[in-house]
Amino acid sequence: MDAQPLYQRLADHYRRAIQSGVLAPAERIPSVRSLVRTHRVSLSTALQACRQLESDGLIEARPRSGYFVRPRHRAATLPAKEPDPNRPLDPASFVGIHDRVSDFIAKCERHATPFDFALAAASPAHYPADALKQAMMRALRQHPEMLVKRVPPLGHPDLRAVLARRALEVGMNLDPDEIVITHGCIEALNLALRAVARPGDTIAVESPVYFGLLQVLESLGLRALEIPTSPQHGISVDALELALQTHPRLRAVVVVPNFQNPLGCVMPDNEKARLAALCERQQVAVIEDDTYGSLCDDGQLRPAVKAWDRTGNVIYCASMHKTLAPGMRLGWMSGGRWSSRVAMLKFAQSRPNEPLAQAAVAEYMGSKAYDRHMNRLRLQLKRQRTRVAEAIGDYFPPGTRMSLPVGGMLLWVELPGRRSSDQIFELALAQGIRTAPGTMFSNSGRYGHFLRLSCGSDYTSRMDAAMRTLGAIVAAAR
Amino acid sequence: MDAQPLYQRLADHYRRAIQSGVLAPAERIPSVRSLVRTHRVSLSTALQACRQLESDGLIEARPRSGYFVRPRHRAATLPAKEPDPNRPLDPASFVGIHDRVSDFIAKCERHATPFDFALAAASPAHYPADALKQAMMRALRQHPEMLVKRVPPLGHPDLRAVLARRALEVGMNLDPDEIVITHGCIEALNLALRAVARPGDTIAVESPVYFGLLQVLESLGLRALEIPTSPQHGISVDALELALQTHPRLRAVVVVPNFQNPLGCVMPDNEKARLAALCERQQVAVIEDDTYGSLCDDGQLRPAVKAWDRTGNVIYCASMHKTLAPGMRLGWMSGGRWSSRVAMLKFAQSRPNEPLAQAAVAEYMGSKAYDRHMNRLRLQLKRQRTRVAEAIGDYFPPGTRMSLPVGGMLLWVELPGRRSSDQIFELALAQGIRTAPGTMFSNSGRYGHFLRLSCGSDYTSRMDAAMRTLGAIVAAAR
Ligand SMILES: Cc1ncc(COP(=O)(O)O)c(C=O)c1O
Ligand SMILES: Cc1ncc(COP(=O)(O)O)c(C=O)c1O
Repeated sequence: MDAQPLYQRLADHYRRAIQSGVLAPAERIPSVRSLVRTHRVSLSTALQACRQLESDGLIEARPRSGYFVRPRHRAATLPAKEPDPNRPLDPASFVGIHDRVSDFIAKCERHATPFDFALAAASPAHYPADALKQAMMRALRQHPEMLVKRVPPLGHPDLRAVLARRALEVGMNLDPDEIVITHGCIEALNLALRAVARPGDTIAVESPVYFGLLQVLESLGLRALEIPTSPQHGISVDALELALQTHPRLRAVVVVPNFQNPLGCVMPDNEKARLAALCERQQVAVIEDDTYGSLCDDGQLRPAVKAWDRTGNVIYCASMHKTLAPGMRLGWMSGGRWSSRVAMLKFAQSRPNEPLAQAAVAEYMGSKAYDRHMNRLRLQLKRQRTRVAEAIGDYFPPGTRMSLPVGGMLLWVELPGRRSSDQIFELALAQGIRTAPGTMFSNSGRYGHFLRLSCGSDYTSRMDAAMRTLGAIVAAAR
Repeated sequence: MDAQPLYQRLADHYRRAIQSGVLAPAERIPSVRSLVRTHRVSLSTALQACRQLESDGLIEARPRSGYFVRPRHRAATLPAKEPDPNRPLDPASFVGIHDRVSDFIAKCERHATPFDFALAAASPAHYPADALKQAMMRALRQHPEMLVKRVPPLGHPDLRAVLARRALEVGMNLDPDEIVITHGCIEALNLALRAVARPGDTIAVESPVYFGLLQVLESLGLRALEIPTSPQHGISVDALELALQTHPRLRAVVVVPNFQNPLGCVMPDNEKARLAALCERQQVAVIEDDTYGSLCDDGQLRPAVKAWDRTGNVIYCASMHKTLAPGMRLGWMSGGRWSSRVAMLKFAQSRPNEPLAQAAVAEYMGSKAYDRHMNRLRLQLKRQRTRVAEAIGDYFPPGTRMSLPVGGMLLWVELPGRRSSDQIFELALAQGIRTAPGTMFSNSGRYGHFLRLSCGSDYTSRMDAAMRTLGAIVAAAR
């Protein structure tokens, strides 16, 4: 504990006082000058401690008056509703999402949007640009020939080795030779689906579901069957089991078991085990998308469904997009019993990835610096997610529902009274605030009164003002 | 002309003498010392001139005796045969090439192969690794944030602007906003085919055809219809026209109009115009693959078929793989009237390419250094291709047929007496010599007695020995 910087110890001291109620909401906290006197610290230490408390959302500055404990949140949000276990499934259908997504993107691009609650990535400052730059430079100096030589099959051996080692942490024992480096998780999902299914086949997905997956299904001519998914425990394995009985052309189920997009939920271990066993028994492939797995608040990595895979029935896909470097477009996969088909499809679709970026990322991910970065990022996202959630409590109308995930960067918000999130999306956009309307996360139209908010950016007082505006737009709607 | 270095002028002087027959085959040329005296040049200039003539294949050193004019080639090769205009087309069929290609790759990897006549790329030393490294370093220093920011849609604007400018040189007037950067030409071909066709459709291709295209067709569930293709003039537009009458599900034709792989042929301008007009009339998409277009011996870029496109019916695909940097995996395309579908498919398949490599390549391709590099590469490939062609003349048995392309890096060789190139491939591989057997270049089995030889590497005396060995293997076969 003593390794903590002084300002943090000071901040923690007051944090405890606020959390225990010793300092009440709206109460003024000691001035910076009195902190200096009382605790015998320097002015800059006292200031830093205040800023920390402010950025944690515990206190707020009022012009010319000093710092005050922030008002207690109205706790207006109710817990998210569980899906109704008795509602019949929507029919498996060809997806028609592209137009909606293109429309969304085009609209976003027509407006200057200083406040982005739509992009599911942390802001650039949260990623280790400088360290990655240095690693790229070293790779360039040591191996400039990588730029002009034939690319190695399946990806750079160093990166595949690092990933196999890190996979142990989520319970997977992978042979590096089964690992294929891809252009982001999205290419991995394409290859996985092409490996196990043919146009016209049905794929089970979570509901709500990441719209990018719906786009992939649409572009491959696959049908989506949406399976009820709990905001707490993830996809309903019971519902999936029923669906398997009635859908003979169901070839695969795609799941995001950890910090699902958009729900943020994590499947409990026993559900992961059940899912793996069920699909193995029924000869239906599991395509696991673990894009958000390592963004857990507590640093305790959740196991992959693939940890329970005994027969190669699970295709594991993941990405360095959200965790390390959105601008490098690196993802990877392990194809299980479809490994050789995956390798063939990767070759035919885009050839192996260029090696330079892989060499740099392998060096970085093999170092302690990566662990330090991940710990920082986890804390940062936790803090930001908490602040946005609080702002929803403070500013959104009563009846708003929300689950509070313990990882990732997303919040899935149910608006009260069936307000149209499409309309709210447009109104907010006109104010420079980007959100993602619920209609993008299903083929069913079931989520027209949900909003997804991403919490990737530093929560500044301007962000807070934007959230206040958004709350007012929601409150005024219909 | 006086800008030429002295040694080159000296070499040219003797080149003319050899070519005109003033110096006869096997005749000794003046010793280095007498060159110094006669032409009043330095010893090093005289030596350089001799080395130049040697590397051009005009003279050869004999130990302790000096330089001799190389024996005249036996001119054993006959011109390549034109396809029979009356032979009926093979039926449009689903491709079964993956196993053959995988088998080929696996076999190649089981042997140490010092002599690679299979890989269709120049050797690393022929590409500007150092300049590209410097450009990457600059891009990293100036814009490290590219590594961690969201990637720009469709590709880096600078690169798209440079490509639009360079496209003018091959007669195309492209809007940079129609240009999409891809992971190599292979991804561009995937996207183009997915944009215009659905599984089960038929695609017309050249015959013989690049096996990578057959793999793409196979992986997408498309049927290939092979159209007779002349080693001189490329695809037969007449045969295509007939095929269109009998194949209603023919959706597109894929052509490599310039320095085709494996034939090396170039379509004459009037044939390009006819092809564009025919396909426009018949509402069949043209997918143009211009991978080798800029590798013309004479530096005169051949126009693209797209130069005759008036309605967006031609999708243009190209690559920096062969010309600039095999290790960077950059390609690009312009989707014509399918542009928005191509953009959507690219997004769904792999998202836009990461920007860093694009920034570096944009800088390089926008500079004069690129033109100098291309001129060097063209000369280098011309020289190497000439040397391999001569070796075929010298060492292959009489009756061997071959066309001599005026660009690219490939030679397509017909072996006499229906020798099996699969068998020759295996025997050569056991001697450390990699070749590409003709069976890979068609779905028909029609080219089982052809070999494709790539001329990407410096033609050393060890390469010459390898060609001699290969010739002996061919001569001994069946
Ligand atoms: C669940 C999920 N899978 C895949 C992706 C795409 O991953 P990548 O950017 O690595 O292609 C995303 C991005 O938002 C995602 O949320
Ligand atoms: C005619 C042709 N098209 C496409 C390709 C593949 O291009 P890229 O390496 O840019 O993906 C090749 C490579 O050999 C080729 O010969």
